[in-house]
Amino acid sequence: MIVPEAIEKLRDIVGSKGLLEHSQQLMLYEYDGSIEKGRPECVVFPTSTEDVVAIVKIARDFNLPLVGRGAGTGLSGGTIPTEGGIMIAFARMNKILEIDLANECAVVQPGVVNIDITLAVQGDGYYYAPDPSSQRACTIGGNVAENSGGPHTLIYGVTTNHTLGVEAVLPDGAVIRTGGKEADPAGYDLTGLLTGSEGTMALITKVIVRLMRAPEKVKTLLAIYDSPEDAAATVGAMTARAVIPAAVEMLDGVMLRMVEEATHAGYPMDADAVLLIELEGPTEAVDEQAEQVDAVCKECRAREVRVARSDEERALLWKGRKNAFGAVGRVSPTYYVQDGVVPRTRVADTLRFIYEVSEKYGLTISNIFHAGDGNMHPIILFDPRKAGELDKTKKAGAEILEYCVNAGGSITGEHGVGMEKNDLMPIAFSQDSLDMMETLIKVFDPDRRLNPGKILPTGKGCLEVRPMTPRAREMVW
Amino acid sequence: MIVPEAIEKLRDIVGSKGLLEHSQQLMLYEYDGSIEKGRPECVVFPTSTEDVVAIVKIARDFNLPLVGRGAGTGLSGGTIPTEGGIMIAFARMNKILEIDLANECAVVQPGVVNIDITLAVQGDGYYYAPDPSSQRACTIGGNVAENSGGPHTLIYGVTTNHTLGVEAVLPDGAVIRTGGKEADPAGYDLTGLLTGSEGTMALITKVIVRLMRAPEKVKTLLAIYDSPEDAAATVGAMTARAVIPAAVEMLDGVMLRMVEEATHAGYPMDADAVLLIELEGPTEAVDEQAEQVDAVCKECRAREVRVARSDEERALLWKGRKNAFGAVGRVSPTYYVQDGVVPRTRVADTLRFIYEVSEKYGLTISNIFHAGDGNMHPIILFDPRKAGELDKTKKAGAEILEYCVNAGGSITGEHGVGMEKNDLMPIAFSQDSLDMMETLIKVFDPDRRLNPGKILPTGKGCLEVRPMTPRAREMVW
Repeated sequence: MIVPEAIEKLRDIVGSKGLLEHSQQLMLYEYDGSIEKGRPECVVFPTSTEDVVAIVKIARDFNLPLVGRGAGTGLSGGTIPTEGGIMIAFARMNKILEIDLANECAVVQPGVVNIDITLAVQGDGYYYAPDPSSQRACTIGGNVAENSGGPHTLIYGVTTNHTLGVEAVLPDGAVIRTGGKEADPAGYDLTGLLTGSEGTMALITKVIVRLMRAPEKVKTLLAIYDSPEDAAATVGAMTARAVIPAAVEMLDGVMLRMVEEATHAGYPMDADAVLLIELEGPTEAVDEQAEQVDAVCKECRAREVRVARSDEERALLWKGRKNAFGAVGRVSPTYYVQDGVVPRTRVADTLRFIYEVSEKYGLTISNIFHAGDGNMHPIILFDPRKAGELDKTKKAGAEILEYCVNAGGSITGEHGVGMEKNDLMPIAFSQDSLDMMETLIKVFDPDRRLNPGKILPTGKGCLEVRPMTPRAREMVW
Repeated sequence: MIVPEAIEKLRDIVGSKGLLEHSQQLMLYEYDGSIEKGRPECVVFPTSTEDVVAIVKIARDFNLPLVGRGAGTGLSGGTIPTEGGIMIAFARMNKILEIDLANECAVVQPGVVNIDITLAVQGDGYYYAPDPSSQRACTIGGNVAENSGGPHTLIYGVTTNHTLGVEAVLPDGAVIRTGGKEADPAGYDLTGLLTGSEGTMALITKVIVRLMRAPEKVKTLLAIYDSPEDAAATVGAMTARAVIPAAVEMLDGVMLRMVEEATHAGYPMDADAVLLIELEGPTEAVDEQAEQVDAVCKECRAREVRVARSDEERALLWKGRKNAFGAVGRVSPTYYVQDGVVPRTRVADTLRFIYEVSEKYGLTISNIFHAGDGNMHPIILFDPRKAGELDKTKKAGAEILEYCVNAGGSITGEHGVGMEKNDLMPIAFSQDSLDMMETLIKVFDPDRRLNPGKILPTGKGCLEVRPMTPRAREMVW
């Protein structure tokens, strides 16, 4: 429990307008984009690294847990306070500090919204590549914490591939700076270790992000299928033909109908799957690859391949994709998004397994995902007011993730482990590896006050978790 | 000192043909590509992960240091035993275990030679991108340990960007597996942490490497200059013009004359600098970019820009670049290669500083480096038989690296820290950061038996090291 003295000391740092402590205010900070909940005891809004250092020292002195929060769009409960304490909201640390086009990078505060970096540099022909579907809201600090991906992960990788360095505050108040504007700094890769550490090691207060030249030409195609398996098979066929799209998104029939009803993006209501394929590069190359994509899709029994003929048509197709979660919200009281990854050759059979799980549990599961890199997002629709439905949903999710791991994949591709999948970590990692992760966290946070209850299993989950047998582990490699 | 009982136990594992213990044999293993030396007490040649586990357990039981070794081409003394003990040479773990083109990756043992991966898959249109100049000899295990780069780092990044997962043996004999065939596994990025850890955390026994599609067209240009500053200025001018070459290598006058005499690559003997520029991609885009490169170079006062007209001409230009160190060996008894990095906008002034240092110490310094990503390789020619010349050389090298750090760069871009630059780490990192690195090592290797005396300062160096002032650190960011 936070004592009034601690609250007063926090108020001294951030001022009255930088502190929330009343329960009606705190209610707004008890959830994120996941199905989890947990209320902080207070929320503070620092405006500088010095503020963060001072807050961290108060948390240390009063032995309080600390959770960082960006825009709260996370999908694994990464920013949910499991044990109360102080939430540090980075909304007021939202400045782009430096744009250095000559060295193709920018230095930004953690509260900068993802899309705002691109908006700041697109006039000069540059952009920031990682594009989570929530990019109009989510912040760079959260992206770094969760190592977020997006549709263009296929060609450009996830956040870690675009993070050159960070400034971070440790739980004892020390400020460290890792990396820099050059590509490959000396010593151990602390930038890489902190990226994706989900707020358990340090609080990120500055980020050096890589900027990239915008491509000369972008072309977006919509391939329409009567079977999800045919759509999935197209992914492998493109690789075999040396076609390298920038993004390959798949929506199955259930999903595309929900999306079409909500956004009128032009997806066909009677299809059983669509692929949204984007090509980027020099004009001639894109045009040539578009012809090859058309041919591959049709070989894989696409009944039609449409090419967006204008920027507006292109934007509309993407609007459908990027607003998909909102579309689901229109037809179901709530939903549970999974984030399993499989090698791209296993997309088709994983999809079949998901449909089996859907039938077994009597739950509607719609699929919208990054097919090109095998990052599956089955969305399980459920009603938490119906007895036992949440429990069934979690079991269905766990079965799907276990299938992904045994297919040589992982329990998360871009949403993080958070408090949603931490009790599933033993299906992907041996106890030795989990112990090592805990030891690593303690190098940064010996008292485990930063974002407790995340990533590593707590043993409190309701799921029956079977650690992988050596045979299963062997199959993964 | 290793006792006969330990030797016998090692022989039981690897057999008589897998163990070297006589001093004439061990002499061959006391050096690498750097100027350092140190003799192991025995060298063992495991053929499997199980062998490595058994060796590691003997090292633990007899409290002996352990150093891994690939081809011994490293340039920072990373594989030099500083305290004797056991050297594990990976020459017999040189199999490509699996090629998985559908998932665009391969699983290889650490002793596989870099170029052999490309040779195994190029018939299918694939290749392994990182291309250290020593790629015909150096091995993947060494590349992962040192996080090696090469000319094409400019566009494709260093080894860590192409390492999807590793199997590694810890000093207590535990085998861990990190990452996998999918792009972004759950949890902390242990693959990234081990990549570049220079053998101080674990011994790598398998690597999953990313394979990439070979580009449709490659074009190589040679731009010839009467001034190194003009050549350096061209790098920034290309960025400003949105020209993105796959590689931009620079040779200054001293260097290009040595190279030309040794390899007859066709470099002009009277020039003061050349840029070797490579473009990759779809044919039309490469042709268009080649015209732009020609224009930019001439704007920056190149006196001539030649385009390689055949694969043979292209290979010859690269032969000159890749055999440069051999060319230096013809004219100087020995040399010291530095590996500083600066933001690309600082290449020109860093080069001027290098020439000042050359004059100050009366030492010939030739320059051949990855200009496109600001990775400088000043090569200091010296004669160790002349009194004081080694000491002067090391001082000159340290001054250059300090300049790089203060320019916002780093003391190593791709060669690693090893035992050559470890005493310079305090100019780039605060004591807090160095302490954290030591704690991180101890998570894996609590007794520090793996490759002792590397990366972190030992305090034994002959250099006077001035820790950076807070002001200097501030400038870096």
